[in-house]
Amino acid sequence: MINPLDENTRTALVRLLLPDLREAIARHPEEIGEIFEEIHPADGADLLSLLDDEEVRILLQHLDPAESARLLEYVEPATAARWLEEQRDEHVADIVEEMEPDDRVELLAEFEEEEQEKVLAEMQPEEREDVEELLSHEEGTAGRLMNPQFVTVPAHGTAEDALARARAGAREDWNIAMLYVVDEKGTLRGRVPLVEVLKAEADASIDSLSQEAEAVRVDTDQESVAQVISKYDLVAVPVVDLHGRIVGIVTVDDVVDILTEEATEDAQRQGAMQPLENSYFQTGFWEMVQKRGVWLLVLFLAELFTASALEHFDHVLKHALTLVFFIPLIVSSGGNSGSQSASLITRALAVGEVGVRDVLRIAGREIGMGVALGLALGIVGYLRVLIAGDSPLVCATVALTLVGVVAIGAMVGAMLPLLFKRIGLDPAITSSPFVASIVDVTGIVLYLSIARLIMGI
Amino acid sequence: MINPLDENTRTALVRLLLPDLREAIARHPEEIGEIFEEIHPADGADLLSLLDDEEVRILLQHLDPAESARLLEYVEPATAARWLEEQRDEHVADIVEEMEPDDRVELLAEFEEEEQEKVLAEMQPEEREDVEELLSHEEGTAGRLMNPQFVTVPAHGTAEDALARARAGAREDWNIAMLYVVDEKGTLRGRVPLVEVLKAEADASIDSLSQEAEAVRVDTDQESVAQVISKYDLVAVPVVDLHGRIVGIVTVDDVVDILTEEATEDAQRQGAMQPLENSYFQTGFWEMVQKRGVWLLVLFLAELFTASALEHFDHVLKHALTLVFFIPLIVSSGGNSGSQSASLITRALAVGEVGVRDVLRIAGREIGMGVALGLALGIVGYLRVLIAGDSPLVCATVALTLVGVVAIGAMVGAMLPLLFKRIGLDPAITSSPFVASIVDVTGIVLYLSIARLIMGI
Repeated sequence: MINPLDENTRTALVRLLLPDLREAIARHPEEIGEIFEEIHPADGADLLSLLDDEEVRILLQHLDPAESARLLEYVEPATAARWLEEQRDEHVADIVEEMEPDDRVELLAEFEEEEQEKVLAEMQPEEREDVEELLSHEEGTAGRLMNPQFVTVPAHGTAEDALARARAGAREDWNIAMLYVVDEKGTLRGRVPLVEVLKAEADASIDSLSQEAEAVRVDTDQESVAQVISKYDLVAVPVVDLHGRIVGIVTVDDVVDILTEEATEDAQRQGAMQPLENSYFQTGFWEMVQKRGVWLLVLFLAELFTASALEHFDHVLKHALTLVFFIPLIVSSGGNSGSQSASLITRALAVGEVGVRDVLRIAGREIGMGVALGLALGIVGYLRVLIAGDSPLVCATVALTLVGVVAIGAMVGAMLPLLFKRIGLDPAITSSPFVASIVDVTGIVLYLSIARLIMGI
Repeated sequence: MINPLDENTRTALVRLLLPDLREAIARHPEEIGEIFEEIHPADGADLLSLLDDEEVRILLQHLDPAESARLLEYVEPATAARWLEEQRDEHVADIVEEMEPDDRVELLAEFEEEEQEKVLAEMQPEEREDVEELLSHEEGTAGRLMNPQFVTVPAHGTAEDALARARAGAREDWNIAMLYVVDEKGTLRGRVPLVEVLKAEADASIDSLSQEAEAVRVDTDQESVAQVISKYDLVAVPVVDLHGRIVGIVTVDDVVDILTEEATEDAQRQGAMQPLENSYFQTGFWEMVQKRGVWLLVLFLAELFTASALEHFDHVLKHALTLVFFIPLIVSSGGNSGSQSASLITRALAVGEVGVRDVLRIAGREIGMGVALGLALGIVGYLRVLIAGDSPLVCATVALTLVGVVAIGAMVGAMLPLLFKRIGLDPAITSSPFVASIVDVTGIVLYLSIARLIMGI
């Protein structure tokens, strides 16, 4: 530990083990375990991702269930489920029982219903009940994410009692950094950091140490859970049922995963495609074609209106072919300005900086912004057309259209995410191409209408 | 705490305090403190964001420095610095001294150098040294982010010693969930979770409890720090100097902030603008015009080549004006396909799913994907042109160009982020509009070249 390796070097070093691992899988699977003893399970999971599915299946057959569980906790649940689907049900149950409660629920949720029931039937009754309880909550809610292992202390207890309970929790490998204060019904009344318990006199009352606890409900959606943990800088947030009783905690490591996952989904939506469920290379070719093709086709159909618009202005184009040269320039400028506004507002909505309530304030700002930016491009555009030796009428048409189209782009880009949010859709579908497809048609109609007006065609 | 409020309701409730707060600021500033006693500092920070700068300045003059410090820990450092710049230096020093070491360094780094020195001069010598040590590290590195307050235990100690040290650390309000094992030189040798200390017998040796510790160096950049914490599911990662001595820890709440910040920056880059330093409404109008205008102008200049390309094919267009109708359709399809690939690869690079080493594998995949998607659009395009009653030659031209342009778009979109990564630039600048501006020109040249060939113009 003299000099920690940077992540890339470390990953590269771990990958040097790959030939040995493949060799062991092919020839002496009883030695597989030794390879994983030396490395962190997160690095082990990285190695697994480089193997063929068949190799991983052999590996999981021969590895100790507890070791398999540790590795699979670091693997995407959908991938882990695929690897486990051909194992015997008892063996899967053995592995699943060794996993953290929140991780195993995520994994089991990926199984086909029939398969899930078979595995549950092989589990110990009390473990099975735990899993079934968590599975009863909807995907993407706090209830599904939470870990049911936490330490409570009665409000009338003392610091000494609390420390004893923390020790008991520690023996179970539970998270004990925060203790939750409850009344006799289990209703959450507050929280006491273990730090405060250690600082306090042994006979200090829990009541005097208790702080107000931020909490979420079992049915709170995971994005809101992430927002609460992030806003209040928490390490864990308690989850309460509809009666206010504490039933679990969601820890910050889940939030890190949620934030990463949501950012990936948003990035893919903004790139105009349906979000993938797996990583880039683990998504099948045809699945990817479909995820991309749907949006590409929708945008193509929307963009067909540009052809109709141009056909409609046939005579204008015939009269002044030179107008054609600037069509891509004009429509792209509107799209670009719209793309900026859309990404600004979509992101500001995602982090809670703005809300639908701010619609008028945003509209005012974006229209001003659009006109200012449009004027800048209009001037450059005017000069370009002038230098090309075109008539002052064409110059004026291009410049005026640029001001209009950039302003329209900014407005459309800013308003669409707010509209989608208002009607309950994800604002992130306002991708740059989506905005562009709307602004393109508008831009062409505006351009050729202005041309007709100014040039008297 | 019977039923926790959801975040939106809570925010709305807190905002009901705004008139009282404004009233207090305007008429009896000595009562400001009472308003903040009742609410969480994170909610207090939200209230501050709704006030005018002048009101916040009056508020900060009258609030107790410790209370101001708690609020400002939840405010964007750049904004907090702006609010503090007109306060007396001693008053700023009083507030800053009450802040967490990592938060105050972030804040002071936002000050003008002269102002920073004045405030440092007013601080207690030992606090000042702490700050200066952290400020000596470059922005965006682990050294700048870290908190220098952590608990170490000697490798030859016992669990009882470790618990005593944890209690001492707790009295200082340090993070004690993890204790770091060091040798006599302070070199990091491992870590012991407090949980393990509580579980162990009093005379158990630290050596026997010590686990391998993932660590980062003071000069590790913040994205890598976030990756390490996220990959290994850590609550905190120790930071070591060039000799392997532990000098601080970076906690997961910083990672949540980094991830959110980086995702915002990437979203804005992908929307084709320079990232903002402040939130949407807190960025000035002209600053925003400039951040957006630069890219808008660059893209406009790049897009000017489309005009030149069209001018070059003047005679082809004159010969068959009907070709013009499909120009926006064709260029947008190429851009959309490129936008998908760019967002996929940029994001996969950001989360470490792919690397520059995968360039050939990605290229192979994207070319196949591009051809498959291009064929789908080509067929639809062929039918559209056919129905419009255009000649089979135009139909063939449009369909063939679509296959080509979608494939080219996919390749350009996938390769650019890898190229930027390779030459040390941020892959996220490969925005949809950026890809489109390159693909647009290529698409036009391809389209009209194919037309010339097929139609024999």
